[in-house]
Amino acid sequence: MQFPKKITTIAFDADDTLWVNEPFFQDVEKQFNALLAQYVPVAEIATKLYAVEKRNLALYGYGAKGFMLSMIETAIEVTNGLISTEDIQKIITLGKEMITYPIEILPDVPRVLERLAANYTLMVLTKGDLLDQQRKLARSGLRHFFDHVEIVSDKQPQDYQEILARYSLQSEEFVMIGNSLRSDVLPVLELGAYGIHIPFHTTWVHEQVADENVESERFLRLARVSQVMDYFNV
Amino acid sequence: MQFPKKITTIAFDADDTLWVNEPFFQDVEKQFNALLAQYVPVAEIATKLYAVEKRNLALYGYGAKGFMLSMIETAIEVTNGLISTEDIQKIITLGKEMITYPIEILPDVPRVLERLAANYTLMVLTKGDLLDQQRKLARSGLRHFFDHVEIVSDKQPQDYQEILARYSLQSEEFVMIGNSLRSDVLPVLELGAYGIHIPFHTTWVHEQVADENVESERFLRLARVSQVMDYFNV
Repeated sequence: MQFPKKITTIAFDADDTLWVNEPFFQDVEKQFNALLAQYVPVAEIATKLYAVEKRNLALYGYGAKGFMLSMIETAIEVTNGLISTEDIQKIITLGKEMITYPIEILPDVPRVLERLAANYTLMVLTKGDLLDQQRKLARSGLRHFFDHVEIVSDKQPQDYQEILARYSLQSEEFVMIGNSLRSDVLPVLELGAYGIHIPFHTTWVHEQVADENVESERFLRLARVSQVMDYFNV
Repeated sequence: MQFPKKITTIAFDADDTLWVNEPFFQDVEKQFNALLAQYVPVAEIATKLYAVEKRNLALYGYGAKGFMLSMIETAIEVTNGLISTEDIQKIITLGKEMITYPIEILPDVPRVLERLAANYTLMVLTKGDLLDQQRKLARSGLRHFFDHVEIVSDKQPQDYQEILARYSLQSEEFVMIGNSLRSDVLPVLELGAYGIHIPFHTTWVHEQVADENVESERFLRLARVSQVMDYFNV
């Protein structure tokens, strides 16, 4: 398979597509669990945290600050208010560390971007905290490969539609590459654009979809980002 | 004075330019002070809160979630950890209310936008939490007047430069209207674009500048947004 010559624009998700992210969140969550283990059975904590996150998602959106606020709320609720303020301060410190964690670029990413940039318009298309994502991109050293940076609050079909309109792109000119089937692939397929799924070894439960099978001629699943080059004009 | 005919694009700040914002923050801060008054003298709280906000600004950026996290941190620090978790939960609730406060459009705004929209490209150009600002714009009912919406993490000259480049605008084609001399006016004047300052009755201390006098032929200060129409082709 070759992607059609019509494609002009390749968009990349950022977290867990260009660089490591979810493992840092999970590591923070592990430390959060350890902190609360003196108050309640660990088994209860994860379920409660995800419930609070989900409840707050519409209000806070995606990203580190919302996660921090949900951790604090969870900590108070799950301990029936018994958590010490010292431990709440520790949660804030954990969250701040998460915001500044070192960027760990995934293998082959710079090489692939460099090759694609010669023949395609490249875009970062990511959701999360605005400042956070901008800062990660700046620190990644990958910024110069991209013609456009779009940080969105959600990745519904309508959000992609707005991006396509903004750059006067037809859907058959656009391909999205990312680790989340739910956010990066399914909505663009729905619009008639192309989607490439590159699974990361771990996925936030919220991004998981029940059925991993996708039937579409505009869909591709790859194991590594370097394989992208086999399908494009580079 | 008429603005030169070259101007094609009029950008508006959002908070305290299109709708009321700072008074809601100040109201939340008042309730925050009242909550902490049982622990410490109120005089200490405001100074401490602003110090914590400033310290966290580079990390959190502008917006409600960062403000919530700074309130919690301040509350723990200023009470030497004596604040109850019940009161911390109250701070979270206060913050959540702030995120969903009702949009109160400033006088004449819809009428002015409608008139300008007929002859100019209109843009919202605001900083803050991405989802927050999008939601406020959606709830304001003003979205349809604007051709473009730009939510940025900061309003330095470089941020404006990027916006101008994105829309292939020359600085002499662009005017920015807003209530903050520091964020909305001075940086665009620096780039050679036009700036209109419409002061709001109250300004966050962080946005205040020492000298309110601006010497520039590309600058205008107006008392009300309706006066904007006297200077443009409507």
